[in-house]
Amino acid sequence: MSDGRPLLVTPGMGIGPEITLRALEVTDRNKVVLIGREGPLREVHASIHLVRVNSWAMALATLEEGVAVPIWEPSNGAEPVEVAAIRIATERCMAKEASGLVTGPIHKARLAAQGFQFRGHTDFLGDLCGVRPVMGFVGGELRVALVTTHIPLSAVPEAVSRERVVHTVRTAERALRESLGLDHPRIVVCGLNPHAGENGLLGTEDRDAIVPAIAELTALGLDVRGPLGVEAAFLAARSDQADLVVAMYHDQGLGPLKAVDFGRSVNWSMGLPIVRVSVDHGTADDLVGTGRAKPDSMIAALNLARAIVQRQGVGL
Amino acid sequence: MSDGRPLLVTPGMGIGPEITLRALEVTDRNKVVLIGREGPLREVHASIHLVRVNSWAMALATLEEGVAVPIWEPSNGAEPVEVAAIRIATERCMAKEASGLVTGPIHKARLAAQGFQFRGHTDFLGDLCGVRPVMGFVGGELRVALVTTHIPLSAVPEAVSRERVVHTVRTAERALRESLGLDHPRIVVCGLNPHAGENGLLGTEDRDAIVPAIAELTALGLDVRGPLGVEAAFLAARSDQADLVVAMYHDQGLGPLKAVDFGRSVNWSMGLPIVRVSVDHGTADDLVGTGRAKPDSMIAALNLARAIVQRQGVGL
Repeated sequence: MSDGRPLLVTPGMGIGPEITLRALEVTDRNKVVLIGREGPLREVHASIHLVRVNSWAMALATLEEGVAVPIWEPSNGAEPVEVAAIRIATERCMAKEASGLVTGPIHKARLAAQGFQFRGHTDFLGDLCGVRPVMGFVGGELRVALVTTHIPLSAVPEAVSRERVVHTVRTAERALRESLGLDHPRIVVCGLNPHAGENGLLGTEDRDAIVPAIAELTALGLDVRGPLGVEAAFLAARSDQADLVVAMYHDQGLGPLKAVDFGRSVNWSMGLPIVRVSVDHGTADDLVGTGRAKPDSMIAALNLARAIVQRQGVGL
Repeated sequence: MSDGRPLLVTPGMGIGPEITLRALEVTDRNKVVLIGREGPLREVHASIHLVRVNSWAMALATLEEGVAVPIWEPSNGAEPVEVAAIRIATERCMAKEASGLVTGPIHKARLAAQGFQFRGHTDFLGDLCGVRPVMGFVGGELRVALVTTHIPLSAVPEAVSRERVVHTVRTAERALRESLGLDHPRIVVCGLNPHAGENGLLGTEDRDAIVPAIAELTALGLDVRGPLGVEAAFLAARSDQADLVVAMYHDQGLGPLKAVDFGRSVNWSMGLPIVRVSVDHGTADDLVGTGRAKPDSMIAALNLARAIVQRQGVGL
């Protein structure tokens, strides 16, 4: 289940280090390189043999020996270790020296206080790779892609443009085809307003932005239906009449997704030139050290990353 | 399962008449009076014996005979039959001549075009009863109450005030105690923004309106937690750590609810002086006459209405 190159994991913050090691205890840890802070990983009582390395070459040498999992704590002085870790891991993937990246959770407010300029992983990765990725969630019963992500609710209506809906759906559709092997994915698109605006009675954005976007997508030959009320959209997905739900904003997509798939779904960055999968939860700081943090999403993320790498045949 | 007085049902529009009769075929139809358009009910092929009546007195006389279900098509000339039906049914409940009201779906845009001034049943009933009801959903695995209901998404952030959150939680808490018999309901409150705003990083309304509301409610002795991200709130409810989720707006509450409880949950107006329960779906006009409309929510609504009537001992 490896294409020969390392799979990189940034454990992140909060419960990230703990769930990373718990996940590696029960899943394929062949050719895994951890990049991030060493201290929190050492505090976890896990049966994983960790070896500190100080360079990419040392990490590769450790993997050659096949005994331990290398942990590399990068420092470029200019940014928090967790941010440097994501940057370096992305660079190795872009250089095709690694097969993919699995990320643990980061605490955005804490990193923002240290100068981190991005809303989260996805924006940061898009900047590093020079593309506009789409935040997707897969791995459980439902698949979801988001038109907008981590912005205040009051900023959502203006951010939902025809262009952005088209970009989201096209990016997600291509990702489902090329990386998951779905031939002609059936996509349902949520409206922005309750009941998709009820013909303009409850807001005009559905009519003015989403309806034209769907017409454009349909003209391109994509199988797209909507805008639907969020209830109808997820009902279609749950009754196997749709392969993907496109939601206009964070809570519209993640509320139903997590109510159904908590612990099973993972965050997948669609449209990046690299394979990147993440846990679908936050740092849960109140659970650190309690032993109550569940590694399910990290296990699912590791497995999905390997599956996508295999399917894409990256570098083969 | 009756307190001796009639239970009123307004079948509504679209699939409403069809699911009403389908539901009455398989549930307790003792002392049920239908109020609404006769034509669409006659078009449904159902095994229910309907008798047209032209007054409340005739309806009562028909119930006395115990053979048929009376259908009363009211007309006051000034408003659509469906609206007059709700008005008359509410008046009978207010006068304590009926035990409760179960409503089918209405098509708000179509009624608005005929001069109907309200966003839906709940607002209309609040106006008729002179109170501010809260839209709640119960009957399945999850219970949900909404702070705002059928308004454009762009109007939500301003509408979520401290006062409105307090009113919603207090009204819902009392309803769960008095009508459903929950002793000390455990309530989780969603944030407005993604992840409840992440300490102001993703919007300030959570900090400025919802946090103070929860402090006020806690000081009153209520068991209230939040603001939580929508994922955490519904996770608490699904893992039996909360009896009610209070959502800030329509899709935030109904997306997760229906993804889990479709067909089981019903809309219950909390805080009204009368018992009123409704189906939790729309008119689904495209399903009319196809035989594919499911009566599950109407069955659940009829059963819940009778259960609440029994518990409250209204009129006993």
